[in-house]
Amino acid sequence: MTTHFRPVALEHASRLINQGPTLLVTSAAGGRRNVMAAAWSMPVEFTPPRVAVVIDKRTFTRELVMASGAFGLCIPGAGLADLTYAVGSTSGRDEDKFARYGLVAAEGPVLGMPVIETGCAAWLECRLIREPHAEEAYDTCFAEVVAAAADERVFAQGHWSVSDAHASLQTIHHLGGGLFARAASVIRAKAP
Amino acid sequence: MTTHFRPVALEHASRLINQGPTLLVTSAAGGRRNVMAAAWSMPVEFTPPRVAVVIDKRTFTRELVMASGAFGLCIPGAGLADLTYAVGSTSGRDEDKFARYGLVAAEGPVLGMPVIETGCAAWLECRLIREPHAEEAYDTCFAEVVAAAADERVFAQGHWSVSDAHASLQTIHHLGGGLFARAASVIRAKAP
Repeated sequence: MTTHFRPVALEHASRLINQGPTLLVTSAAGGRRNVMAAAWSMPVEFTPPRVAVVIDKRTFTRELVMASGAFGLCIPGAGLADLTYAVGSTSGRDEDKFARYGLVAAEGPVLGMPVIETGCAAWLECRLIREPHAEEAYDTCFAEVVAAAADERVFAQGHWSVSDAHASLQTIHHLGGGLFARAASVIRAKAP
Repeated sequence: MTTHFRPVALEHASRLINQGPTLLVTSAAGGRRNVMAAAWSMPVEFTPPRVAVVIDKRTFTRELVMASGAFGLCIPGAGLADLTYAVGSTSGRDEDKFARYGLVAAEGPVLGMPVIETGCAAWLECRLIREPHAEEAYDTCFAEVVAAAADERVFAQGHWSVSDAHASLQTIHHLGGGLFARAASVIRAKAP
């Protein structure tokens, strides 16, 4: 199988989630692994690339992330909307969700986190920055991006391109209750 | 002028930014006011509704927010893409950007923050939760939403509706460099 994934320079990594897509958070520790959906994330710094993501303290993902000090962020394309909703609605504590949903994951190059390419527009591998107060009070996990890659058909040289030619890779944005907006067209603002 | 804005129940307020739209952050203190664009924000809690937004410590907005302990988040529709890019590219330290760009703001009902309705889909009035470490290390400002309202043509009873009938109110999502994706169509995921 030909992969269209190419490494993304770290100074461009924050751009991958700048538009606020719903993400798949992947994790692994002690021989277990998991994947969940997360609509609540944002970049917090371009260089070094840092992000924040809300991971509820009751989730199995949170347990794995605290054990490994790392997680992956995969950006599902529109073709994975059903899967994104499904992995966001079930727990992986009792069952490996990769196996259940037929998800193929590779190992991230720096931290070995599961990263998903098929059906995804991009992924980021992230090292947790321990911030016990923010984690406890707001379920907010800060992290530094240490590796990233994107499908070159939709993100190359630090820039997204959005077109109907790759509609299944358009990012999705959870409105609630399984309804996603898709980033399906663009507006170029006038230079101020 | 007829307004289509209606109050949003606080338990639905986080949904207004769940899909990751680019926002206008408004602020006021000591007789000055400002508006800037922010692509980096997220909800962190549904009840009480809490949010996080990155406001660079070098900005005039950050100065006003720290002085007043409050800010507004307005959700610009696609018709305001040029304006959003413009207020995100200039400082309000030397000039009132509301006057410069002809922006009309009302006073928020609880904290008196400037809230913009014309061209916006919704707004949230937020009380800063002081978190000096997160503010300093990540420019991340946590806040509680104390009032919210939305244009009932696009958000009602806690739910977004996206349609071409109100294309100018579709949310915009900054891809970088003045290019915005618009939330122009929806996918309803299968119930898991």
